[in-house]
Amino acid sequence: MNLKEFFKNDRFAAMIGAELVEVSEGYAKARMLVTAEHLNATGYCQGGALFTLADLAFAAAVNSHLQVTVAISSNMTYVSNVKGGWVYAEAREIVNHRKIPYCEVRVSSEDGKLLAILNSSAYRMDRTIEAL
Amino acid sequence: MNLKEFFKNDRFAAMIGAELVEVSEGYAKARMLVTAEHLNATGYCQGGALFTLADLAFAAAVNSHLQVTVAISSNMTYVSNVKGGWVYAEAREIVNHRKIPYCEVRVSSEDGKLLAILNSSAYRMDRTIEAL
Amino acid sequence: MNLKEFFKNDRFAAMIGAELVEVSEGYAKARMLVTAEHLNATGYCQGGALFTLADLAFAAAVNSHLQVTVAISSNMTYVSNVKGGWVYAEAREIVNHRKIPYCEVRVSSEDGKLLAILNSSAYRMDRTIEAL
Amino acid sequence: MNLKEFFKNDRFAAMIGAELVEVSEGYAKARMLVTAEHLNATGYCQGGALFTLADLAFAAAVNSHLQVTVAISSNMTYVSNVKGGWVYAEAREIVNHRKIPYCEVRVSSEDGKLLAILNSSAYRMDRTIEAL
Repeated sequence: MNLKEFFKNDRFAAMIGAELVEVSEGYAKARMLVTAEHLNATGYCQGGALFTLADLAFAAAVNSHLQVTVAISSNMTYVSNVKGGWVYAEAREIVNHRKIPYCEVRVSSEDGKLLAILNSSAYRMDRTIEAL
Repeated sequence: MNLKEFFKNDRFAAMIGAELVEVSEGYAKARMLVTAEHLNATGYCQGGALFTLADLAFAAAVNSHLQVTVAISSNMTYVSNVKGGWVYAEAREIVNHRKIPYCEVRVSSEDGKLLAILNSSAYRMDRTIEAL
Repeated sequence: MNLKEFFKNDRFAAMIGAELVEVSEGYAKARMLVTAEHLNATGYCQGGALFTLADLAFAAAVNSHLQVTVAISSNMTYVSNVKGGWVYAEAREIVNHRKIPYCEVRVSSEDGKLLAILNSSAYRMDRTIEAL
Repeated sequence: MNLKEFFKNDRFAAMIGAELVEVSEGYAKARMLVTAEHLNATGYCQGGALFTLADLAFAAAVNSHLQVTVAISSNMTYVSNVKGGWVYAEAREIVNHRKIPYCEVRVSSEDGKLLAILNSSAYRMDRTIEAL
């Protein structure tokens, strides 16, 4: 099972231009090119766009063991703004628990500035990704 | 200043089909029609789509006093899934603090099922919406 | 099973003076008299004291169905300070899910001022309170 | 100003046996010996005790620049249980922002097992620690 391929079925992530660039055990990296379409009413990249990018990386990292795992609660902290260019989200599964894993995601701009941090608790279901 | 008009400048919310339907002091309601474009790789509405809808309602509620207010930290809890139909987000500013307000948002399906809860702490800047 | 009696075994809550005053299905109320012993280095009630009070109410509310339920992730938002007097925590289980319930707790001073809000996701274990 | 000395005025932390062992710019470490007095009704260290320990380390780290800084919102995630022995909390200020810093705290047992993670957004006030 190629997780990068599997997550191409995430149509919402695709619509907003978020895509996985790397997935390994307990780790994933995603990217998105921020354009005028991603901006909010004050002219900065919308929080929901950054959240979706972070959430895609989170989903790939916690599903990297091929057991279906869904978010329970995700805490998004905003650090800085961005108006354009590439943004990256790196997800690390800090706790690989058999039922309730925990994952941290850092979102950064292309010049390495920290934009946001997503901390998510998740729940492993009794199903494999292959069985979906 | 008509906040519903102002938030039409949120191009990201517009792209994903999220729109405000009501704004008053400390309150806002937004809606979005979930279509195939909003689904994730497992066939349910993507968490980022629900987050963005909730965030739009939050932004309108905390900016309803016309002082620019931005999210500091937003905690999203997922309750149920949805595969289509209208979803609604209702935001209530529980704490109208002069610097650090706090807002709760409930996201529900068109048949009234609770889908997610967003709790956000925000920061009021020294600027009015009109001055943007 | 009397939950108020059961939670008297919470020695930490007892040490700091937090006690349950009411428990029903999906609901609990706890109280604590803030004294000099609860203050932090700046002279206000320590966040950990308010958290513990809120956590006691949360634990009683989510365990009110007599299935052992533990916190996964708890988000504490501080609203105002207090230097003394009674403080109360009221917990409401908003989502009574068979595996992952969700509970909101409001902490208030004796004159009704909101002090803090605790939002917690929890996990139900395959064990009853009676079996402990 | 010696921050370790200053935080000895945190009477609540002292009552529960939490103490700072190290403080430097943007960093702090605290410890607590878990005894029978720290246990909850199910026989494990109470979440509020671990939270208070983590909060003490957080407070020292974000106040290490000697500007009074208070928590806005703190997200506590529970990873494992402990029944006794030393527990440690290490706080790192990830974002040293002039108004809204962000700090991560890891709580571990004496054998290095991760017990909990606290992520906190904070607010810097227009006051120095010396002026308190």
